[in-house]
Amino acid sequence: MFSCTPASDDTQQGGKTENSGNEGPASLRNEPIKPIEPVVVADPALVELGKKLYFDPRLSMSGFISCNSCHNLSMGGSDNLKTSIGHRWTRGPVNAPTVLNSSMNIAQFWDGRAKDLKEQAGGPMANPDEMAFSHELAIQLLQSIPGYVEEFSTVFGTDQIDIDQLTQAIAAFEETLVTPNSRFDQWLKGDDTAITAEELEGYELFKSSGCIACHYGSALGGNSYQKMGVVEPYKTDSQVEGRISVTGNEADRFKFKVPILRNVELTYPYFHDGEAATLKEAVEIMGRIQLGRVFSEDENAKIVAFMKTLTGDQPRIELPLLPPSSDDTPRPAPFDE
Amino acid sequence: MFSCTPASDDTQQGGKTENSGNEGPASLRNEPIKPIEPVVVADPALVELGKKLYFDPRLSMSGFISCNSCHNLSMGGSDNLKTSIGHRWTRGPVNAPTVLNSSMNIAQFWDGRAKDLKEQAGGPMANPDEMAFSHELAIQLLQSIPGYVEEFSTVFGTDQIDIDQLTQAIAAFEETLVTPNSRFDQWLKGDDTAITAEELEGYELFKSSGCIACHYGSALGGNSYQKMGVVEPYKTDSQVEGRISVTGNEADRFKFKVPILRNVELTYPYFHDGEAATLKEAVEIMGRIQLGRVFSEDENAKIVAFMKTLTGDQPRIELPLLPPSSDDTPRPAPFDE
Repeated sequence: MFSCTPASDDTQQGGKTENSGNEGPASLRNEPIKPIEPVVVADPALVELGKKLYFDPRLSMSGFISCNSCHNLSMGGSDNLKTSIGHRWTRGPVNAPTVLNSSMNIAQFWDGRAKDLKEQAGGPMANPDEMAFSHELAIQLLQSIPGYVEEFSTVFGTDQIDIDQLTQAIAAFEETLVTPNSRFDQWLKGDDTAITAEELEGYELFKSSGCIACHYGSALGGNSYQKMGVVEPYKTDSQVEGRISVTGNEADRFKFKVPILRNVELTYPYFHDGEAATLKEAVEIMGRIQLGRVFSEDENAKIVAFMKTLTGDQPRIELPLLPPSSDDTPRPAPFDE
Repeated sequence: MFSCTPASDDTQQGGKTENSGNEGPASLRNEPIKPIEPVVVADPALVELGKKLYFDPRLSMSGFISCNSCHNLSMGGSDNLKTSIGHRWTRGPVNAPTVLNSSMNIAQFWDGRAKDLKEQAGGPMANPDEMAFSHELAIQLLQSIPGYVEEFSTVFGTDQIDIDQLTQAIAAFEETLVTPNSRFDQWLKGDDTAITAEELEGYELFKSSGCIACHYGSALGGNSYQKMGVVEPYKTDSQVEGRISVTGNEADRFKFKVPILRNVELTYPYFHDGEAATLKEAVEIMGRIQLGRVFSEDENAKIVAFMKTLTGDQPRIELPLLPPSSDDTPRPAPFDE
């Protein structure tokens, strides 16, 4: 799906082609990063149902935590915390990755333990340190809410709700959460005025220094697992081991999925442990431990300036109105032992 | 603002007047409850700013709890928990009242300790068991976020943000959260077909049994403080004492502001301690301890059916996009001791 090789079309870098009858590939610059395209919603009813579920805290034991709690669509699809807060204020082990453009990841979670968004959606719900519910309880809950029974029936053609439908709907909603039209994408599509000379220099540095070796593709990341600390070890108090916990392969120790840089201005703090508070800090550390390079203040500022051109149009979400519980709906238990 | 005496216009109960050239008072039934009217937004920029603040969890110490966490606009402006979850999972003392139509309350909080929404808005933010922030920290935070500085400046004409502006903006947003056009209001405005015969019987029972003695006015409540347990004591484990904690007057012990019944189908569970899980249970208990009346199953069902006609058009809220923190913005501290 992604490629770090130059695109094979016949456009030239820095200019628009003559025959650009419509926007798109005809005027696309020959760059290793491609623009994000607006999403085409195939099944609006499924997406709308998924949106409700994404915002519904009743899918947690406490009735307080929804998908949106940690992947907040007001805040770049993240929670802007070092690591997340889970059931009973449990401190999560890793920084919550943004849900924005997450369908472009090769797999989900920092260690890639879920193969896609559908598989991911079932995870936090059943994790005792996150939403602390279970798939069985979630289905029992939904089946007790007439509004949901009706909506699942409309979408899936059955009055028997199951976990596959639930996670499919959430994933379908999440797949719509793309952020096209960033200033960088406008530039990629040929608009020379969309980014400044400083931002362009930042992009050139991003490429020439080697950042792009890992942060490539439309999402600028999400396509591979890489060791955190290639040139120099990364010092952290985090106990998380990375990809090895999925593969059991010693070579995968401390390898993490390369995070997406789209909307990175909004998705602070950075790294799997959330220990880099600012982009400046993140760029400094990445340069040093991944590339063996100490960026000057000026270089760092330019790369950061480039990164801020990656903020795209955020999804405009109308807050869903959740169908009310019935008298038979199991009540949340936030304080039960 | 509210009245429990019959309105003085010349319409007749049960019928539409001939001269109803427009919707409104001309066809209004002569009932002790008046319809809720759609809100007219006087200052859209102020309301838009207030909406951002309402949804911004950075106004809490943890960076995790916003106004919307406990007054969730996906869920009838409430959290549907017995009592709310606060900072570090603290169990709140009372059930979170709905924010919907809350501008119609004579005062805010169950004990009326805030005279209006503006005063209320400053409360939870600075409560160590709720958002655990302070007004000073909130201002310092907002002042560090360029997007907010610009927006406050546009709205208030100064680059010095203060707590009055902050709470004024939140209150202005909350004042827009009204729910007109319920089926009951349609009936009040003359549409005989808007409610069923059973629901109408429920309304008649609601009046003849005396529920209306406290639940009157456009909001069906919110206009007075009443003792919980008039005829028979109310048994609860809750330590909350009610209005006495504001007035110091022994006569106010266990008096609470009468809750609004608008959208009551959505704002479960009920009472200041949230101990009534269903409307059926709430009606049974209220009848017994406030009115000395044991409703039959049929009567209870009719009153509940009437109450479900009080669900109005819910505010359609586009989720705000919050301006990102800057490098200088103080970071949340969810786990600090």
